[in-house]
Amino acid sequence: MRIIRSVSVMKAYSNALLREGVRLGFVPTMGALHQGHRTLIRTARSACQAVVVSVFVNPTQFGPHEDFSRYPRQLKQDAMMCRKEGADVLFAPSPEAMYPPGFQTTVSVQGVSQRWEGAHRPTHFGGVATVVTKLLNIVRPHMAFFGQKDYQQVAVVRQLIADLNVGTAIVPCPTVREPDGLAISSRNVYLTIAQRRAAPILYQALRAGETAILKGSKDAGRIRRTMLMKLAEEPLVQVEYMSVCDPDSLTPLTRIKGRVVLLGAIRLGQVRLIDNLLVKAKTKGRGAKSR
Amino acid sequence: MRIIRSVSVMKAYSNALLREGVRLGFVPTMGALHQGHRTLIRTARSACQAVVVSVFVNPTQFGPHEDFSRYPRQLKQDAMMCRKEGADVLFAPSPEAMYPPGFQTTVSVQGVSQRWEGAHRPTHFGGVATVVTKLLNIVRPHMAFFGQKDYQQVAVVRQLIADLNVGTAIVPCPTVREPDGLAISSRNVYLTIAQRRAAPILYQALRAGETAILKGSKDAGRIRRTMLMKLAEEPLVQVEYMSVCDPDSLTPLTRIKGRVVLLGAIRLGQVRLIDNLLVKAKTKGRGAKSR
Repeated sequence: MRIIRSVSVMKAYSNALLREGVRLGFVPTMGALHQGHRTLIRTARSACQAVVVSVFVNPTQFGPHEDFSRYPRQLKQDAMMCRKEGADVLFAPSPEAMYPPGFQTTVSVQGVSQRWEGAHRPTHFGGVATVVTKLLNIVRPHMAFFGQKDYQQVAVVRQLIADLNVGTAIVPCPTVREPDGLAISSRNVYLTIAQRRAAPILYQALRAGETAILKGSKDAGRIRRTMLMKLAEEPLVQVEYMSVCDPDSLTPLTRIKGRVVLLGAIRLGQVRLIDNLLVKAKTKGRGAKSR
Repeated sequence: MRIIRSVSVMKAYSNALLREGVRLGFVPTMGALHQGHRTLIRTARSACQAVVVSVFVNPTQFGPHEDFSRYPRQLKQDAMMCRKEGADVLFAPSPEAMYPPGFQTTVSVQGVSQRWEGAHRPTHFGGVATVVTKLLNIVRPHMAFFGQKDYQQVAVVRQLIADLNVGTAIVPCPTVREPDGLAISSRNVYLTIAQRRAAPILYQALRAGETAILKGSKDAGRIRRTMLMKLAEEPLVQVEYMSVCDPDSLTPLTRIKGRVVLLGAIRLGQVRLIDNLLVKAKTKGRGAKSR
């Protein structure tokens, strides 16, 4: 496996693959690779002929009081995992290479990035959309693999790919969880023991919402209250939002019909956790189930 | 020559060329092709193995009270010129294909697009940056050819290509002029006979500024006044701006040193005209000249 630091070397590598007609898969990450990333790399490996993993802690997607400086950085271990999973390239550019002096261009996605994470982290998706556009232009992959845990991020990236005619297919991959249901995240290392013990309540709340939907409840407000009541059992939790949304536009629903996504964000002390579940409501005479 | 209307067909065509390693040149236009465009197509033809010309009157780069609806549209004649000049493809998508329902992504370039045209047409460069990003992603050319007449547009596109790591080289081509010096533009058809007679004053003013610089004047304020005095000879003219700028950042200069760009915009009645000149000031002991 090759580690590439230079943007122009990475571009040359990708252009050569493009010329040879090699199907290239791409896994963009901020490093601190965990089982969730491992699944993304494996999926890319099985779907594509060559795999590039990027590790870049993108400063522009962190807010001024967020955890940019303490975000975990561990390139050696990351490289080990990439090598073990058969990645061909680990692309790890410096912030200076990605944002040279005089940098002044931004990509922004309006509708789908406004609510939820966008409302709580106002500069976040601007940073994501810009860096993803850059990375896709540098790597030029046929397919890019993203974790469904960041559901809204996937929606934003899907929208920008469609709107800007980027030639990459986006492949969302299922959230990987700890045995107790907590979604695996690089930020879980920030949790104290007590917070870690409380953390699975977010997934339990989403499951409670799912159960209500699968039992036939159509009232989104009621389902939301079910989730909030579950969260209320855990005194350490501060709720940022819990919502019942259209899975494409991410607008909140009143009545449930067909597919919905349950989105949640909580704080445990200073640590922010997000999670989500895609649910398919029963429709009359068809008896569809969760997926 | 092939006329392509569909975005996906255009993408497939470009991808096939990319795979074959064909050097592709691209001339993005709003149609109403004239001698300036002819020069762009010829330059592309001589530098590249295949040439795509796009004709798309982009609604998002016109302000609410600008000339979008009356902008000249003449696809048949445009196709004739493209065919005659040896273009391989004329890409003419519909507004609906470029901006389908739900479109919500914008690309914006901050610094270089703020002044001059950006100040007089506040939404213009946002529209330009977004559509150029889209077109470059659809056509994926090795080189894109732009007229120097739209000097600031070239600067904006160059910046976004660098910032977003787009794999296209930008090639600015010299402004083509009428025998009396008026820069050729699709908008010249709007001029009345009296306005047309007055229009070359813009180029004459720029030339007066150039002459002052070549004679050794270093005082940008004085050069600017020289240009304004020339324009004042023509009563039909309303000046929007005349400026002496750094040729890369487009910030106004106080003292002249090395290369400068003279930028101008005037109105003749309802018609807005822009033009510019790149000038290289004499430096001591070298006797450099205009270019």
